[in-house]
Amino acid sequence: MRPSGRKTDQMRTISIETGITRHAEGSCLIRVGDTHVICTASVDERVPPFLRNSGLGWVTAEYGMLPRATTSRTRREAAAGKQGGRTVEIQRLIGRSLRAGVDRVALGERQITIDCDVIQADGGTRCAAITGGWVALKLAVNQLMRAGLVTTDPLVDPVSAVSCGIYAGQPVLDLDYPEDSEAGVDGNFVMTGDRLIEVQMSAEGATFAREQMDALLDLATAGTAELAAAQRAAVA
Amino acid sequence: MRPSGRKTDQMRTISIETGITRHAEGSCLIRVGDTHVICTASVDERVPPFLRNSGLGWVTAEYGMLPRATTSRTRREAAAGKQGGRTVEIQRLIGRSLRAGVDRVALGERQITIDCDVIQADGGTRCAAITGGWVALKLAVNQLMRAGLVTTDPLVDPVSAVSCGIYAGQPVLDLDYPEDSEAGVDGNFVMTGDRLIEVQMSAEGATFAREQMDALLDLATAGTAELAAAQRAAVA
Amino acid sequence: MRPSGRKTDQMRTISIETGITRHAEGSCLIRVGDTHVICTASVDERVPPFLRNSGLGWVTAEYGMLPRATTSRTRREAAAGKQGGRTVEIQRLIGRSLRAGVDRVALGERQITIDCDVIQADGGTRCAAITGGWVALKLAVNQLMRAGLVTTDPLVDPVSAVSCGIYAGQPVLDLDYPEDSEAGVDGNFVMTGDRLIEVQMSAEGATFAREQMDALLDLATAGTAELAAAQRAAVA
Amino acid sequence: MRPSGRKTDQMRTISIETGITRHAEGSCLIRVGDTHVICTASVDERVPPFLRNSGLGWVTAEYGMLPRATTSRTRREAAAGKQGGRTVEIQRLIGRSLRAGVDRVALGERQITIDCDVIQADGGTRCAAITGGWVALKLAVNQLMRAGLVTTDPLVDPVSAVSCGIYAGQPVLDLDYPEDSEAGVDGNFVMTGDRLIEVQMSAEGATFAREQMDALLDLATAGTAELAAAQRAAVA
Amino acid sequence: MRPSGRKTDQMRTISIETGITRHAEGSCLIRVGDTHVICTASVDERVPPFLRNSGLGWVTAEYGMLPRATTSRTRREAAAGKQGGRTVEIQRLIGRSLRAGVDRVALGERQITIDCDVIQADGGTRCAAITGGWVALKLAVNQLMRAGLVTTDPLVDPVSAVSCGIYAGQPVLDLDYPEDSEAGVDGNFVMTGDRLIEVQMSAEGATFAREQMDALLDLATAGTAELAAAQRAAVA
Amino acid sequence: MRPSGRKTDQMRTISIETGITRHAEGSCLIRVGDTHVICTASVDERVPPFLRNSGLGWVTAEYGMLPRATTSRTRREAAAGKQGGRTVEIQRLIGRSLRAGVDRVALGERQITIDCDVIQADGGTRCAAITGGWVALKLAVNQLMRAGLVTTDPLVDPVSAVSCGIYAGQPVLDLDYPEDSEAGVDGNFVMTGDRLIEVQMSAEGATFAREQMDALLDLATAGTAELAAAQRAAVA
Repeated sequence: MRPSGRKTDQMRTISIETGITRHAEGSCLIRVGDTHVICTASVDERVPPFLRNSGLGWVTAEYGMLPRATTSRTRREAAAGKQGGRTVEIQRLIGRSLRAGVDRVALGERQITIDCDVIQADGGTRCAAITGGWVALKLAVNQLMRAGLVTTDPLVDPVSAVSCGIYAGQPVLDLDYPEDSEAGVDGNFVMTGDRLIEVQMSAEGATFAREQMDALLDLATAGTAELAAAQRAAVA
Repeated sequence: MRPSGRKTDQMRTISIETGITRHAEGSCLIRVGDTHVICTASVDERVPPFLRNSGLGWVTAEYGMLPRATTSRTRREAAAGKQGGRTVEIQRLIGRSLRAGVDRVALGERQITIDCDVIQADGGTRCAAITGGWVALKLAVNQLMRAGLVTTDPLVDPVSAVSCGIYAGQPVLDLDYPEDSEAGVDGNFVMTGDRLIEVQMSAEGATFAREQMDALLDLATAGTAELAAAQRAAVA
Repeated sequence: MRPSGRKTDQMRTISIETGITRHAEGSCLIRVGDTHVICTASVDERVPPFLRNSGLGWVTAEYGMLPRATTSRTRREAAAGKQGGRTVEIQRLIGRSLRAGVDRVALGERQITIDCDVIQADGGTRCAAITGGWVALKLAVNQLMRAGLVTTDPLVDPVSAVSCGIYAGQPVLDLDYPEDSEAGVDGNFVMTGDRLIEVQMSAEGATFAREQMDALLDLATAGTAELAAAQRAAVA
Repeated sequence: MRPSGRKTDQMRTISIETGITRHAEGSCLIRVGDTHVICTASVDERVPPFLRNSGLGWVTAEYGMLPRATTSRTRREAAAGKQGGRTVEIQRLIGRSLRAGVDRVALGERQITIDCDVIQADGGTRCAAITGGWVALKLAVNQLMRAGLVTTDPLVDPVSAVSCGIYAGQPVLDLDYPEDSEAGVDGNFVMTGDRLIEVQMSAEGATFAREQMDALLDLATAGTAELAAAQRAAVA
Repeated sequence: MRPSGRKTDQMRTISIETGITRHAEGSCLIRVGDTHVICTASVDERVPPFLRNSGLGWVTAEYGMLPRATTSRTRREAAAGKQGGRTVEIQRLIGRSLRAGVDRVALGERQITIDCDVIQADGGTRCAAITGGWVALKLAVNQLMRAGLVTTDPLVDPVSAVSCGIYAGQPVLDLDYPEDSEAGVDGNFVMTGDRLIEVQMSAEGATFAREQMDALLDLATAGTAELAAAQRAAVA
Repeated sequence: MRPSGRKTDQMRTISIETGITRHAEGSCLIRVGDTHVICTASVDERVPPFLRNSGLGWVTAEYGMLPRATTSRTRREAAAGKQGGRTVEIQRLIGRSLRAGVDRVALGERQITIDCDVIQADGGTRCAAITGGWVALKLAVNQLMRAGLVTTDPLVDPVSAVSCGIYAGQPVLDLDYPEDSEAGVDGNFVMTGDRLIEVQMSAEGATFAREQMDALLDLATAGTAELAAAQRAAVA
């Protein structure tokens, strides 16, 4: 039933390649099927003004797409002179999601910026960015711990994210672009262990029933567990 | 337990005053407790380029706050030279939510713009904007029907929205500002009849369990039903 | 002769409702006929850099219109990404006018920002904004005096403003929108007591004689006196 | 009494050099004392959209200052990324003033843009810009008439402008910068023949009496007459 | 003498991997030592307005850097709200350089946009972008030729670019970042076959002699020949 | 062969008028044929942040054109809301070129900003701006030396610039606009004494041979020597 031939509860192939750029404190190239995202973590010993002398750390994120990550070329946001509403929404989501899984006291008063740049898009880029972003963050934290700058690991369970939706009337896991562009109802689920961090279900020109919501939550719980295993393997 | 003394499942007082401005095709001032929002609907016989000659209508929304709607003065976005990320997120949500409740074929090839301007804020402004925005939209549609420009009512059940969250460890309905600023987990629920349109649960520095998610959905179902009754009364 | 049936020297009905928003130190909704403006005063104990350690206070103003305050919808300035030339001119005028009636030594080193937001427009919005802005300012100053932060009242006579113009060849007082859009010559007069603060006579594709100027000054003197009485009543 | 030693009713030396740039259809360098402004007129056979097929012409203006036209360097507006409020006010004034002296039917459906760029500033730049702008406009119109594109002269009396104010308690004509920066009350007067086009009296932290207004109008009437003579000589 | 141990006339290792993204008509990842750039070519059947109905094609380019392509994180241009002067200079150079090697009649009335995004920077990013950009362009042109849309190959010799400079008093080829940041005199040379397209020699706080200019031209001629061989191999 | 009748190695008439504005520390109006540029130098005792407490001075430049400096009117950059890519390239070139001729230790920790505003354009505006900019800079430095603020002259040989290109197949010196718009290959050469500072050869849709490059360098060497003589005369 799915264009890719996957089962309704089947994730795409996941691959996470770490250490892909020489300058960043942490980095990876995450591939979820044909969605490819470069994630880097940059450590800055200064925090934003509202946190000075608080002893608390901060994690923030920025998101971008190369112009030809998409089927047809998308205008470069730097040339357009601003980040679009979709970009701003996504990078706020990534930052909020990763912060939910961080012990900010243990991190100490420093900021880590996660940059997520989509090299090739095939649906689910924000979820891949969160999942890959956590890996880059963990690698940067590991470096801080090796350097003795952080003593207690501020990260416990991986934070991972997956999109689900109602496609052709059925709840399906990990939408690719052909599914995403057809689904009237879809959403993003961010989890850590068996706890929820963010649920964003959205309908465009449609509505959905409570039981469908429940089915999607079940799919997402399984999918994020699979992603978390890949994250743990990548940072081991 | 709640600062306002309300019960956990108790909405604030709702009031919807219609016809509050002379120029708009539909308008209301919605008050949900101390949150006050002016909503207007403006009909434009032209649609955006991507819909020309499609026979389909469009509903879109814009959102703003007067600078002193808030406890301390907030910088005017027009003076800052752009709409902030929060504003963009909110107005996209309002537009998407209202469109989910519209039969765009019945509306015909025209656009209705809903402007939601917060006069006084005390939490839940985006939910009040959706709820009041639907009333303004319905009044404008009624005028189109009286003029014979629309023959089948494109709106059936009201679209209404409420925020819920975990406050002091307990799921509560219709957060006001003192609750909202304390809650680590909260969200917005948009419903029409017993169907869901949008669920946005979000945690800042926290996580939540599946059962809490279920409890919040129960509260939201009851709250939006109460709002729908007020909407029906207002447009009767 | 006038579309509204008013006499040439007749003002529209004036109403000033105070205390209309909970957060602002001073606020009112002024109605001059069908022109309705919300004015709020926000006190900030810091002054702009050029006044630091001068002992002098500052009053500034910002102006906006809800998109559907006008007959057809006007583009939201925050969405357009900047305040238009007309807005900038108006808010500079409001600030300058109010400052002319303030003893800045008595006010002390603090800033009061007057926000004037037009809810419904029918001509003369800048004049209503000045008149209502003074009321909001006075209420905020009264609060500062009750709190003992200001000991000598920095405001004496109300500052009020009215537009006049040559309509159908005759000098008329307090132009409404149908008159304003026809008048080739019109202007705004700001006064306090019997003194002038600002005179802005402007002709679009027309010119005017010195005697007409004199007649308009006479009308404005009477009109602002009537407004001042309403202002005094509102703040009493 | 005046820093320059001038009498209260004495203009600065006026010089208008025409044809100062090779490309423009009309141009001049106007010097009013130490205020020097380059004015050019550019003819465009297209009009703005709102005038298409109306048969009416349009005159508009833009204003700028070289960064070091002022005592200390002023930031370049192109580098700042926008025109300041003062610039926008001034160029709207110039355009409106010049249009008041144009027969737009006789001009025919074309647009003339007047660019006024201040090379050296010593007070009264907007008045010099209007006065010089009219000369550039007239020269461009003459060229159109010689080419047979315009048959009836759309310009009759020169449009000229002068600033006046209350300096050291006395009404004075044609303020230079040392006077302008001291005067609490000053204004700009635009006239054509014995008719008024624009009166902009403004007080910063001060007020003025009706008789002072009258005295300034008298001074301005004499000053603009002197400017008109210089304009006529320049275009002869 | 060189930090990398290279000889003065020795290029870094060059690698060009093609077909690295699924959506673009042509793409490659070029690595010149530790400088890595993703280049994509996007074909658009429409040309810019100034070329409509001219029968001529157009090639243009855009350039960007991922924020953490650099040693310390660089602010994202989309977030800053504009492309910096350096970016604009570079992308104009890339477009101009590639156009010099294109027969625009043979290309036909269509536009090809080359996007060059630096993944990792170690000096010479604009030269790598030109060299890799030509490869992406050639691959896109090959696709057009296979589809029969272009019949005569509009590209003959590869266009390639290299930087040279005076380092520690000696002319050296293909500067890496440690050399580039020390060299007071350096430049970029774009060539095709034995012909020059662009020479940009620049000194910061220094000057150079005519003989040094000649030595650098010799080095660049050899270096671009080596790059051209790698380009030919990549597109074979 | 040249439209102006000049010989291939003949410069246009050069004139440099100094002290043309009262406020600037140094100023001139340079005319190279029909290209006229006003150059001013503004001394600021503060340096940019990256130079604080370094003991080093800084020279920077800004460039602009009056809208009607060109054959047809060019849009004002301040109105467009940003400086175009061409402007940014040019002002970076001017600043870099002038700095190459300055002993920044001798200048001391202060900044001089050179503003170059084109009053009339006929090709070669950036070269005229560099040449005239050096004169303004020198005059400002002379004033600093007379005031005892600078003791060793930080300027030795003049910095001057000229454009050359291949016109009608032949290398020619000092392109005017009709030549510049025809030449497929042209460039700018900045020199001081017999040393090079900047070489920017560029081809649009063309290429050039090494011998042509050599011929252009010969022409530029002679041309800049002639300009240097005029600069020395102007500041004597």
